[in-house]
Amino acid sequence: MSSLRVLPLGGLGEIAKNMTVVELNGQLVVIDCGLRFPSPEMVGIDLVLPDFSYVRDRWQDLAGIVITHGHEDHLGALPWLLRELPRPPAVYGSPLTIEMARAKLEEHKLKGVPLKRLATGERVEVGPFLLELIHVTHSIPDACAVALGCELGTVLFTGDYKFDQTPVDGPPTDLARLVELGQEGVLLLCGDSTNVDRPGFSPSESSVGPALEELFGRCEGRILITSFASNIHRIQQTCDAAQAVGRRVALIGRSLRKNFSIARSLGHIQVDEGLVVGPREIADFPDDELVIITTGSQGEPLSALRRMAHHDHPQVRLHSGDTVVFAANPVPGNERAVNETIDRLYHIGCEVITPREAPVHASGHGHAEELKLMINLTNPRYVMPVHGDYKRLKLHARLAEEVGVEPDAVFEGENGLPLVIDEHGARFGARERAGMVYVDGLEIGDVTDAALRDRRLLSADGVVIVVAAISGADGRALAEPEVVFRGVPFVGGGADGLVGEIRLAVAESLDRCAREEIREVDLIQKALHDDLAKLIYDRLRRRPMVLPVVVEV
Amino acid sequence: MSSLRVLPLGGLGEIAKNMTVVELNGQLVVIDCGLRFPSPEMVGIDLVLPDFSYVRDRWQDLAGIVITHGHEDHLGALPWLLRELPRPPAVYGSPLTIEMARAKLEEHKLKGVPLKRLATGERVEVGPFLLELIHVTHSIPDACAVALGCELGTVLFTGDYKFDQTPVDGPPTDLARLVELGQEGVLLLCGDSTNVDRPGFSPSESSVGPALEELFGRCEGRILITSFASNIHRIQQTCDAAQAVGRRVALIGRSLRKNFSIARSLGHIQVDEGLVVGPREIADFPDDELVIITTGSQGEPLSALRRMAHHDHPQVRLHSGDTVVFAANPVPGNERAVNETIDRLYHIGCEVITPREAPVHASGHGHAEELKLMINLTNPRYVMPVHGDYKRLKLHARLAEEVGVEPDAVFEGENGLPLVIDEHGARFGARERAGMVYVDGLEIGDVTDAALRDRRLLSADGVVIVVAAISGADGRALAEPEVVFRGVPFVGGGADGLVGEIRLAVAESLDRCAREEIREVDLIQKALHDDLAKLIYDRLRRRPMVLPVVVEV
Repeated sequence: MSSLRVLPLGGLGEIAKNMTVVELNGQLVVIDCGLRFPSPEMVGIDLVLPDFSYVRDRWQDLAGIVITHGHEDHLGALPWLLRELPRPPAVYGSPLTIEMARAKLEEHKLKGVPLKRLATGERVEVGPFLLELIHVTHSIPDACAVALGCELGTVLFTGDYKFDQTPVDGPPTDLARLVELGQEGVLLLCGDSTNVDRPGFSPSESSVGPALEELFGRCEGRILITSFASNIHRIQQTCDAAQAVGRRVALIGRSLRKNFSIARSLGHIQVDEGLVVGPREIADFPDDELVIITTGSQGEPLSALRRMAHHDHPQVRLHSGDTVVFAANPVPGNERAVNETIDRLYHIGCEVITPREAPVHASGHGHAEELKLMINLTNPRYVMPVHGDYKRLKLHARLAEEVGVEPDAVFEGENGLPLVIDEHGARFGARERAGMVYVDGLEIGDVTDAALRDRRLLSADGVVIVVAAISGADGRALAEPEVVFRGVPFVGGGADGLVGEIRLAVAESLDRCAREEIREVDLIQKALHDDLAKLIYDRLRRRPMVLPVVVEV
Repeated sequence: MSSLRVLPLGGLGEIAKNMTVVELNGQLVVIDCGLRFPSPEMVGIDLVLPDFSYVRDRWQDLAGIVITHGHEDHLGALPWLLRELPRPPAVYGSPLTIEMARAKLEEHKLKGVPLKRLATGERVEVGPFLLELIHVTHSIPDACAVALGCELGTVLFTGDYKFDQTPVDGPPTDLARLVELGQEGVLLLCGDSTNVDRPGFSPSESSVGPALEELFGRCEGRILITSFASNIHRIQQTCDAAQAVGRRVALIGRSLRKNFSIARSLGHIQVDEGLVVGPREIADFPDDELVIITTGSQGEPLSALRRMAHHDHPQVRLHSGDTVVFAANPVPGNERAVNETIDRLYHIGCEVITPREAPVHASGHGHAEELKLMINLTNPRYVMPVHGDYKRLKLHARLAEEVGVEPDAVFEGENGLPLVIDEHGARFGARERAGMVYVDGLEIGDVTDAALRDRRLLSADGVVIVVAAISGADGRALAEPEVVFRGVPFVGGGADGLVGEIRLAVAESLDRCAREEIREVDLIQKALHDDLAKLIYDRLRRRPMVLPVVVEV
């Protein structure tokens, strides 16, 4: 009997870039392909992807890719992976997920990828597995758990989920099918850990609608509201609340308008004709007849709301009397950007409502009791928590033990560490390559650690460039050295004195090199670097990057 | 009758760098002189100070500086201000505050500053004012409100405060004296707004001690605990809890040890001989006989705890079985650094306890009901909230109206906006210079916006340096141009192709300049810059800083 390998390439030890490879009989299926937004120390980086090496090296064995739902941390890296594969595999997902994937691939001009819309309940063979999507509720429609059936049992990925008993659109999470899968035999459960540290049950998304309507009813001026651009249910409820209080709705922000359009075409959004007006029509309506839905709930630098807060948006100029509703919490790490935006809004004179002031947000991730419920419903043989930093993985592992999973059947994994399961049991195998790949502009993987280190150095203390032209014949200096500073702080009387000292030091270094018959440009540059770095540190107590360039003429 | 001016130079529209100038009859008194830690977009900056220009220009009129308590955001900028004044004025404060100021001035090698330890109740003439310190409770001992009495009435600065009914050390906030001042006539109340958004009353600091003792009693391995280094009461309570469960205490971190020593010499910390052991003695005690108090509660990069979490601390190597207690909440903006540290600790296998898991922290700032109590006790004629971002200033202003202050007697101020009070009433006067001054290494104010902009550019996309040596006689190129990249990402086959293209472009630019008889180096460099920036953007879709250096030989 063969062995199954479940290899996480992202999403463990972090809350982002989810990706897992499942392998049996030499064939691979990838579950999710998400990205991550860079943290401040990743200077100048646009996006972070999982390291795809393992999948790229095995592209001939890749039977398919399954995406659980349309969020960036599950879908966003898909085009980047497909670009690296000589032959695109089939990509499976629910209808909305696949349409969002299609829009993404079009942006990247990727053609010929077989995109397979799968209905829940439908079963299809993908390599050695029987693939099935199970409907779950989350903060985007058409979210699914993924079951991969094989001879050893079912591997079940929950994807992101909550047990919303009163979802805004569609049925609740398919409890019956989860129970059936459990009865048939779930070998391994890989469950979302995002909200494991919150006790109890998450509130239903449909609790937000009445709160919005109540709030809108109290507002006298214009209303602006921001949430995640893919939170279609929130957009629906905002439209409903606006209509109930007799206001029109305008949508501002590219991603919001794109998602609105895709979701509407699939029937996930239903609004009366005439309710939604274009951004340019905002000026045609009085303040008390408008609700503006906008991007920017995370304080993103170029988002519509952030630009409005800086009075830098073409269609909307905020003023005293406007109410701005944050129907989202800051993702960890974004608190500062969100707080800065909020404070600017207060300074303008806006009223600001956040989830602290009114119940205008419900998380899409189940809390601790829901995670317990998932385990009890599916009764898995093994459990490996995913989608969480190490803290959440540990809490989720403990929670699994609390509901009766044997401690030696619970695995706290890491990216790159494959869980190997066969008839003898389960254990971690030898570590595979996994990690972060940076996207910087158009290309991926080309930003080396050296380039990042350079940027960190450059950003800390700036750069000093010293150019010396020397004679190719005898190594003597042909002109006074050029000294260029960028981003360097100065002591006392500015740069002038220091420039003189640097020129003197250059002359001395060159003399010494000439005396010692050092004629190779590389060695001369190294000598200059060491002498100048020391001089500059002595004078400034800073370590700017020192770049000597010697030109032989 | 003359007019009083109250000019905030820091602490309004921000939670940091508190500083206010009070002026009467041409004489100035400064209340607090605090600093601020830089936010990520202030690349390479070490500290942020208030813009002192107003005080520096009026140094001859400066009668004194009063510091409310020893925290960095009230005291930290003092040495930097004193360095800029031709003659140091007297500095007033409570004994602990003055000793902390003394230690700071010694670090900066500032001598001859008259430091005046003032007891509460004592009154002293400072310029046109009668100065008095009023005892308040806060998260550092010897914290005070400041009353400046003058012919128009009393200007009362609360400083940071809470109404702790059961303080760990010393009496509660001096309610009686606050009431008396109110009865004598408080003209203006400038109150702390930090926790105005929290309802009710803050918990007492002394509620933390029993929670620590209960927690310590449950721990089987080593205990590490981190809080603010100046939270002397927390250190005392930690020592007491350690002693109660039969453990020794070690202190790690320079600022912690310094504050411990100052506070102990003034009697604010009382511990038995032998309880505290040195960092080097840690190895001599079994894990279950130790509590280690350490710096690093904010995830600061070079702090002891952060280094321990990276297995990079000389005395402490963390391991599974250790419990790390965060007896502090992250200051807004530090969430990411704190969470990263916590996750590393989980990865090592430590147990981590934060204020979410156990009541091991109490804020030093009063909540909304305490702010109301302060207004009701002191019954001020005018109110100007301080120490808060715009949101908190607005909430504090509303709260003042709720307890009966007339709306036109409540002033929402800004840094640089003086509140002018005379017999006709109060109003804002003409704006004065105020803002941020950056400290970068040794010096202040020398980091220009241009240098910061340069660093941001450098950190985003790196730098391309192109050096061309040309003949002074005819402007023709004397050698192949040197091209140096730092921190730049590359497309496709790396830098080689691009370097060739750049060299070609340099040759073309130089040719064109020669043809057009452009011989000035500045103009040639500008032409090179424009041509190369365009080429590089075309190829990389990035905008690194392009620095052409032309050397005439």
